[in-house]
Amino acid sequence: MTQQDYKFEGWLGKDKSSAEGNMVWGEFPKVKPFEETDVDIQITHCGICGSDLHTLRSGWGPTPYPCCVGHEIVGKAVRVGKKVEKGIKVGDRVGVGAQNSSCLKPDCEECSAGLENHCQHAVNTFADQYPDGSYSYGGYADYHRCPSHFVMKIPDAIPSEAAAPLLCGGITLYSPLKNNGCGPGKKVGIIGVGGLGHFGVMFAKALGADKVVGISRRHDKKEDVLKMGADEYIATDDDKDWASHHARSLDLIVCTVSSPKMPLMDYLQLLRVKGTFIQVGAPEDKLPDMTAFAFIAKGVKFGGSMIGPPWQIEEMLKFVAEKNIKPWIQTYDMKDANKAIVDMDAGKARYRISLVNKKHL
Amino acid sequence: MTQQDYKFEGWLGKDKSSAEGNMVWGEFPKVKPFEETDVDIQITHCGICGSDLHTLRSGWGPTPYPCCVGHEIVGKAVRVGKKVEKGIKVGDRVGVGAQNSSCLKPDCEECSAGLENHCQHAVNTFADQYPDGSYSYGGYADYHRCPSHFVMKIPDAIPSEAAAPLLCGGITLYSPLKNNGCGPGKKVGIIGVGGLGHFGVMFAKALGADKVVGISRRHDKKEDVLKMGADEYIATDDDKDWASHHARSLDLIVCTVSSPKMPLMDYLQLLRVKGTFIQVGAPEDKLPDMTAFAFIAKGVKFGGSMIGPPWQIEEMLKFVAEKNIKPWIQTYDMKDANKAIVDMDAGKARYRISLVNKKHL
Repeated sequence: MTQQDYKFEGWLGKDKSSAEGNMVWGEFPKVKPFEETDVDIQITHCGICGSDLHTLRSGWGPTPYPCCVGHEIVGKAVRVGKKVEKGIKVGDRVGVGAQNSSCLKPDCEECSAGLENHCQHAVNTFADQYPDGSYSYGGYADYHRCPSHFVMKIPDAIPSEAAAPLLCGGITLYSPLKNNGCGPGKKVGIIGVGGLGHFGVMFAKALGADKVVGISRRHDKKEDVLKMGADEYIATDDDKDWASHHARSLDLIVCTVSSPKMPLMDYLQLLRVKGTFIQVGAPEDKLPDMTAFAFIAKGVKFGGSMIGPPWQIEEMLKFVAEKNIKPWIQTYDMKDANKAIVDMDAGKARYRISLVNKKHL
Repeated sequence: MTQQDYKFEGWLGKDKSSAEGNMVWGEFPKVKPFEETDVDIQITHCGICGSDLHTLRSGWGPTPYPCCVGHEIVGKAVRVGKKVEKGIKVGDRVGVGAQNSSCLKPDCEECSAGLENHCQHAVNTFADQYPDGSYSYGGYADYHRCPSHFVMKIPDAIPSEAAAPLLCGGITLYSPLKNNGCGPGKKVGIIGVGGLGHFGVMFAKALGADKVVGISRRHDKKEDVLKMGADEYIATDDDKDWASHHARSLDLIVCTVSSPKMPLMDYLQLLRVKGTFIQVGAPEDKLPDMTAFAFIAKGVKFGGSMIGPPWQIEEMLKFVAEKNIKPWIQTYDMKDANKAIVDMDAGKARYRISLVNKKHL
């Protein structure tokens, strides 16, 4: 154990207006006390996720300000407890996704089944509270403390700016694709080809799906999406009668769109009989109206998926390394985090943004 | 082939008011011409299904009046074409469920996959039209004509008044239970313990589920439902805080309720992580509001299921015979069909009604 000679500081949101580019740099008031199962990470990179914006503006419910967002963290292990898992050592390049902790008790239905991401005692990487009353603070920062069960070693083949967004954005798509049989013999659609969706297109292709269809509102992303590996592209605002034209064509759809106005009944038309629609985007409002007939007539299912457990994140990182998948990442200096979130919110990211903490490179 | 010496007559609905007990007996105007793949059935029994009421009152859309409802038909094969399947012979006790026909083409995605019930060219047993322009007429009648692929032999062990309601009501529950893993290790809930639900409770138990929970609005059915084989009973109108009290307790729920006012978000609370909710009741309106978080937080799914293909109906009939399952059936004289549908609509059935055509016994 090394003596701690660093401070937990980062970009703090102090109220809803922080989402408009008004975060301020400052020290974290109530960091989790170090335990022997913990790892402290000197942050070099942090991806920007839609959740960061939702949380900064209290869109999913009241946020406990001051909060530091960012849950796609990569950096160097600088302090490692005596009881850490996975043989993590000081100096290792490691990462943390959207989850910092769960109960890990043997009698927990979820933790014992490898579903730590659904544990009722999960602690999110930011804006959440540990049982001892301390808070979790995210990765728009210099350092991050996390229980080792939720710390992943990063394979050498993946650059840090690409590894960071995989830890939440990547697993958010990898998990529903893997869990719902994406692979040979399946036709797969990805709705919303932004930061999340672009992972979905690349993963579905690399998993061997017979056909991958990128679905977005406008034609302007078509060329990019085909380059990512999609076989077809549907522009729901620009293509006439797209829902009936492509009806019953897809076995599996993963939807990253979080607008409560999305044409959900039209999306469901795209499913083949027995098909599955997985929603990963979380609207700040209720879902659009649906009819029972849409489900009964074709025997289809609508489900949700939330990140993934640590073992599956590790599986995904290995998969990305082996398949040589290259996420499309833009980098911003950590100093420019306020500009970066405003650009992200304006839909300017092509396709995911990583903040780079240059003083730690 | 025998000479046809019988007429296709039955109870006709001539407008929406027929659902209030105003069906009139009469001849069917445009019966399907006999083909060598067809079977004519002298009807002895016909179950009453909620669909009959929905259709008589044009609740799911405009009904082509005059129509004869009833799609839980049992009787004697009296005319058998030269090209029928399954070795059906004149004199056999046979049945027909909610479906009379599908395209059965080798290049049909659904038919070739044993999913005839989802074929886009399916013809319903009543109020539907064959490609040649003739109509299908249901089983509140003396005779029924049906392509043999959708005619099932009835196992000797099952009395006709019990066999009839199995052909739609039974398969509507058996199919989603079987298709979604009901069996040892699973905790299963059945919402709405009426005609459909009572099959669900009995099937889930006979399939070996660890726990079967009957869920209805009032306590008055509790004793019956426990007798059917349920381990627990929840009364959603009478039990306080039932949703939070039983939260995360069930792996699979089949919902037979078709009220658009059902407390769907509360029902979803009952699901365990990765659980599945299958809707088989079809509201005449949109589904109640749902949030994406209800799905994402637990990784659960909402799906629909519609009857089942002929091979699965045959599997169910064998299962019912082998497990000696005894549906709770009330019988009414076919002459009293108008009274029977009014009683059914008033929720008086305990738990499913079969009409008996005594002149054919």
